[in-house]
Amino acid sequence: MDYLFYLVPAAAVIALFFAWFFFHQMMKESEGSVTMREIAQYVREGAMAYLKQQYKIVSIVFVVLAIFFAILAYGFKVQNPWVPFAFLTGGFFSALAGFIGMKTATYASARTANAVSRSLNSGLKLAFRSGAVMGLTVVGLGLLDISIWWLVLNAFVDNPDAGQKLVVITTTMLTFGMGASTQALFARVGGGIYTKAADVGADIVGKVEANIPEDDPRNPATIADNVGDNVGDVAGMGADLYESYCGSILATMALGASAFFGDTALQTKAIFAPMIIAAIGVIVSLVGIFVVRTKDGADLMSLLKSLNVGTNLSAALIGVLTFGIFFLLGFENWWQMSLSVITGLLAGVIIGKATEYYTSHSYKPTRKLAESAKTGPATVVIGGVGLGMISTAVPVVTIVVAILLSYAFATEFSFDVSSLGIGLYGISIAAVGMLSTLGITLATDAYGPIADNAGGNAQMSELEPMVRERTDVLDALGNTTAATGKGFAIGSAALTALALLASYIEEIKIALHALGKELSGIPDITQATIPDMVDYFNVTLMNPVVLAGIFIGSMMAFLFCGMTMNAVGRAAQKMVVEVRRQFKEIAGILEGRQRPDYKSCVQISTLAAQKEMLAPSILAIVVPVLTGLLLGPAGVIGLLAGGLGAGFVLAIFLANSGGAWDNAKKYVEEGHFGGKNSESHKATIVGDTVGDPFKDTSGPSLNILIKLMSMVSIVMAGLTVLLHC
Amino acid sequence: MDYLFYLVPAAAVIALFFAWFFFHQMMKESEGSVTMREIAQYVREGAMAYLKQQYKIVSIVFVVLAIFFAILAYGFKVQNPWVPFAFLTGGFFSALAGFIGMKTATYASARTANAVSRSLNSGLKLAFRSGAVMGLTVVGLGLLDISIWWLVLNAFVDNPDAGQKLVVITTTMLTFGMGASTQALFARVGGGIYTKAADVGADIVGKVEANIPEDDPRNPATIADNVGDNVGDVAGMGADLYESYCGSILATMALGASAFFGDTALQTKAIFAPMIIAAIGVIVSLVGIFVVRTKDGADLMSLLKSLNVGTNLSAALIGVLTFGIFFLLGFENWWQMSLSVITGLLAGVIIGKATEYYTSHSYKPTRKLAESAKTGPATVVIGGVGLGMISTAVPVVTIVVAILLSYAFATEFSFDVSSLGIGLYGISIAAVGMLSTLGITLATDAYGPIADNAGGNAQMSELEPMVRERTDVLDALGNTTAATGKGFAIGSAALTALALLASYIEEIKIALHALGKELSGIPDITQATIPDMVDYFNVTLMNPVVLAGIFIGSMMAFLFCGMTMNAVGRAAQKMVVEVRRQFKEIAGILEGRQRPDYKSCVQISTLAAQKEMLAPSILAIVVPVLTGLLLGPAGVIGLLAGGLGAGFVLAIFLANSGGAWDNAKKYVEEGHFGGKNSESHKATIVGDTVGDPFKDTSGPSLNILIKLMSMVSIVMAGLTVLLHC
Repeated sequence: MDYLFYLVPAAAVIALFFAWFFFHQMMKESEGSVTMREIAQYVREGAMAYLKQQYKIVSIVFVVLAIFFAILAYGFKVQNPWVPFAFLTGGFFSALAGFIGMKTATYASARTANAVSRSLNSGLKLAFRSGAVMGLTVVGLGLLDISIWWLVLNAFVDNPDAGQKLVVITTTMLTFGMGASTQALFARVGGGIYTKAADVGADIVGKVEANIPEDDPRNPATIADNVGDNVGDVAGMGADLYESYCGSILATMALGASAFFGDTALQTKAIFAPMIIAAIGVIVSLVGIFVVRTKDGADLMSLLKSLNVGTNLSAALIGVLTFGIFFLLGFENWWQMSLSVITGLLAGVIIGKATEYYTSHSYKPTRKLAESAKTGPATVVIGGVGLGMISTAVPVVTIVVAILLSYAFATEFSFDVSSLGIGLYGISIAAVGMLSTLGITLATDAYGPIADNAGGNAQMSELEPMVRERTDVLDALGNTTAATGKGFAIGSAALTALALLASYIEEIKIALHALGKELSGIPDITQATIPDMVDYFNVTLMNPVVLAGIFIGSMMAFLFCGMTMNAVGRAAQKMVVEVRRQFKEIAGILEGRQRPDYKSCVQISTLAAQKEMLAPSILAIVVPVLTGLLLGPAGVIGLLAGGLGAGFVLAIFLANSGGAWDNAKKYVEEGHFGGKNSESHKATIVGDTVGDPFKDTSGPSLNILIKLMSMVSIVMAGLTVLLHC
Repeated sequence: MDYLFYLVPAAAVIALFFAWFFFHQMMKESEGSVTMREIAQYVREGAMAYLKQQYKIVSIVFVVLAIFFAILAYGFKVQNPWVPFAFLTGGFFSALAGFIGMKTATYASARTANAVSRSLNSGLKLAFRSGAVMGLTVVGLGLLDISIWWLVLNAFVDNPDAGQKLVVITTTMLTFGMGASTQALFARVGGGIYTKAADVGADIVGKVEANIPEDDPRNPATIADNVGDNVGDVAGMGADLYESYCGSILATMALGASAFFGDTALQTKAIFAPMIIAAIGVIVSLVGIFVVRTKDGADLMSLLKSLNVGTNLSAALIGVLTFGIFFLLGFENWWQMSLSVITGLLAGVIIGKATEYYTSHSYKPTRKLAESAKTGPATVVIGGVGLGMISTAVPVVTIVVAILLSYAFATEFSFDVSSLGIGLYGISIAAVGMLSTLGITLATDAYGPIADNAGGNAQMSELEPMVRERTDVLDALGNTTAATGKGFAIGSAALTALALLASYIEEIKIALHALGKELSGIPDITQATIPDMVDYFNVTLMNPVVLAGIFIGSMMAFLFCGMTMNAVGRAAQKMVVEVRRQFKEIAGILEGRQRPDYKSCVQISTLAAQKEMLAPSILAIVVPVLTGLLLGPAGVIGLLAGGLGAGFVLAIFLANSGGAWDNAKKYVEEGHFGGKNSESHKATIVGDTVGDPFKDTSGPSLNILIKLMSMVSIVMAGLTVLLHC
């Protein structure tokens, strides 16, 4: 059966090959006129400069943490010796995925603008294929990293007990997940602050005060805004989904190793299953990507249809093939396990549809929100907050049903404690199912910012309005498909975080074993089950320590959001002041006679992002460590559960409020309730501006926060054990 | 020892006597000029008319629920036969407390305005004593209801086992808590929607569009706004705190009965302790109230000082006397128990101080928020949201420390499961400590809206500006003292809700016993401990059903807030449309030549509040019932813990964001960043308007939601048991 494993590196290579191929194809296209190239070059330089800065700072954090882990591992022996290295590779690959995605996007935007001026269809194809570069890079690098570590650890981990060896290997691999999460958090937070400081600043002075359109070359913040789309929406998202993708696979592998402990053959199968589903997922994603092609002269509906055909085909294929995978692997309950995976897939789709319903202006909620603009900005803000909060119901109920169903399928409907491990494995593999077609769903997600930037380029290069209109169509299409992508990202985060709770307990066992500690009432710690451990540490909702953890976890979600939100607010204020200054001091900007100083705005965003990303990110690392030291394992599990519950709901609220405000503004711009430049329009711009950090800084960072807190707890379990057992 | 009980009804009578006395004193004052009387009469009529309407609808809900409980009790025998009656009296007394408080406030406002025109000090005294009417009514009625039910149930409950009898009595009394919670939720939600619809509507058209000051008689929504202050901030708050006060005492009694089960004497002492602390609390509150008197001609600082002297003296006295109470009751660990109570008191003070720091414009956060107005409304909203989220950290950490300390004191620092019950009793009695001086803290809270309304009356009656200035001073003073009040309300809600988790498990046991059901592995259900039950139902954080409950609980907090928020938004929009219509259609309003049609605005608020309060309130009742039926006890406990964690943090966030926006506006009005009528001022008005439903509708309702969900679960435990055991 071992030969099946080679599907995984093979899929990784295939994915990376096609990523290279699409990149190469894109580069052959023309970048358009001199102005277009020049602007693209500006954006590219700004983006690269920022990313370099960010990576520099993050590297310092990584080196410090790696040294810390090395001391724990080699000095105090409370940690696995592979941890520092695994941690570093996770961070490196995550950063690489973001970097490649961003590089592609910055090369693709002017080319897309140029292609769009030929035809809508060639624009779509170019932008979508460029998005696919990121999708395929993320899954390719993810599977590559997983394959390498699997081979390395299998060769080097020395444990006479085969089953125990598998447990150690898989939990060690989780640390590379922590590396990925840490880097992803910095990328999301830093990129999110960068892009929204620029966006908010540009909108407030440009649209509201000076009455000039978005992406107008007269606006000094416009280049920073476009750079921001790349560092936030592309590089940040790439790092984020690399982390989600690997996290779900790694968590499932670790759960498989512990749930089926005692039967090495079954254990191996359970570890292979998520990797192979992911590998097959790469192939079906490629099939989907190639299906996305329309005839020249196709209209918007047929474009949307053709994108949907691609993603739906991929999802349907992986659904069907999952049955084959579990059957081939020789699982007795192969079809029930497959149903767990399909539950995850369906849950992702439903959450995506719900997101679309609440945030698209084709539906009632956002239209009503737009209508509330007739009574000014305050009612728009209140309405958007209300809408976002209400919109949490469907995704939460969906996730709850998915949790219970995927658990029940895997355990063949036993809710007995003895089948707990297998049930949690079912939940975790549902997350893998959700993300298995990431190759294509991320392509539909990443192509949005490319189209957006193409529009920016067109505007700044003063191409004919038709080009901007077409890129707007592509952008709108991207917003719709991105809703589904968000559903998958947030849903999988919830399921994975849940699975990581079990991995934490597993890691506590390993740490106890490594330190030679014994727990009263548990004669052999390696044989202890999850319920044994839960019993020992009294991880019940009646334990005040657990409840204390839940309070802190819930608070962490809010505190983290508050910090990132304020960071955007502060940076945006600086941007506004600078743009106002330029309008006032540099004569002739608004008449188009004089170029504004773009660089100073780029500088403001870069500095703000660098400075402001540190505190919230470090908080996310420090609080779980402190909780472990002060409250012990029971407190940590409470922290993670509280953070998961409140964080998941808060993330949906923020994302949907932000999305709805954005589209309510677009709805007014389409001519409703007074149309462009009316009082209603100004009110919706306030809503949209408020929503910017909601949906693009704080909201998406929460996904990562939830998982990073789990990962940190897992990695630091040794220290907790040292103090508390 | 039984004689000590009579302290409780005695304290109730004393409280009610002084409430009557202060009311009587207030009524002897003059209501001022004809116009002042007329306006007061308008407000009074509007408030009474609304309250009647609200009580009518709530009565229907109560009758339906009481019949439902009667069917469960008498038809299916899954419930205690006293439940329907206890439920009704709780609702009745809560409504009565709100009614008396509001009646007093509506009589007091014109009188305060009139007194203020004499001197600031006589105004303070009158408003404060009128606030004390509500404080004393709430605690008086609460202790009266508790005394009556204690006597009735002791006489009629028939149980040969004395210890078992005490458990049944105290858990039955909890149902009257459910009645109080249900009525309080309707009062808070209905009143909150009423007041904020009027306030937001009046502000948007009046302040922002027509540029007329607050409470200007030319504004058609101004009477509705003043009515709203009474039905929301007074009647709503009265019902709310009646519920909190009784809830904390009842929960502690129930925990005392279960924690010390097996030793009837100790059980009785543990039941008496919270009642007696509350009774002594009434006396020390009265002492505090009488201390609040300043010399004529005192300035603001000495007024604040004199209020603080009153509340601090009461708190210090109860702190000291608690030692005596526990000693007299003959507790072995009397001083540790007292430390639990004092932990609660201190936690309330710290949360209050933190609230003040984050929301008062004497400190940096709110000043920075005001400064962000220089860049427009969007940055104000973003900044306020960020501030509110960050402000959750201190209260959460305080509550966590309070939970752990009050638990540890009560168990003499044992975190062993065997002392769980006693530890939870310690947490619960900390909540009683927090609320023991409610007689005076509520007075300082309730006097704010009275001063506010006095200002409204002065403005509308066109008294000399000095009067308005003085009422503004009183109002500002009220805002500061109210911060402490809020700390106590929200902190005690968290502690009580936590204690109610244990009561839920106790009720499950009673229901099992009553239905003659047995649990495998537990031979005698009446002897089962909380850890036994937790074990049996697997209430651990690894049980997917528990995690499902946590997700739903977290979501409930957001969904509920979203619904109430949207209700305010919708009603406010109607109000805006109506006010704009009047300005346009009725000639001469803005020039003061023609009176606006106040009644139509009152009508809009009344109808909106009535219509919109039903859905969220019913949701709060239905979801715990459904969770019980679908997921069983483990799911319910998850729901309650998730709702508690997310709800507590969300409530603080909403309250503090709203408070900070309000005071940021006031700071600008004081002349900073451009002062009144500047662009900055308009931006802060948007913030203030957004904050209105945050701090006065959704936020405070969450406190009640958290407890109501627990109460509903407790009352419906029988049905859950019938289906799940």
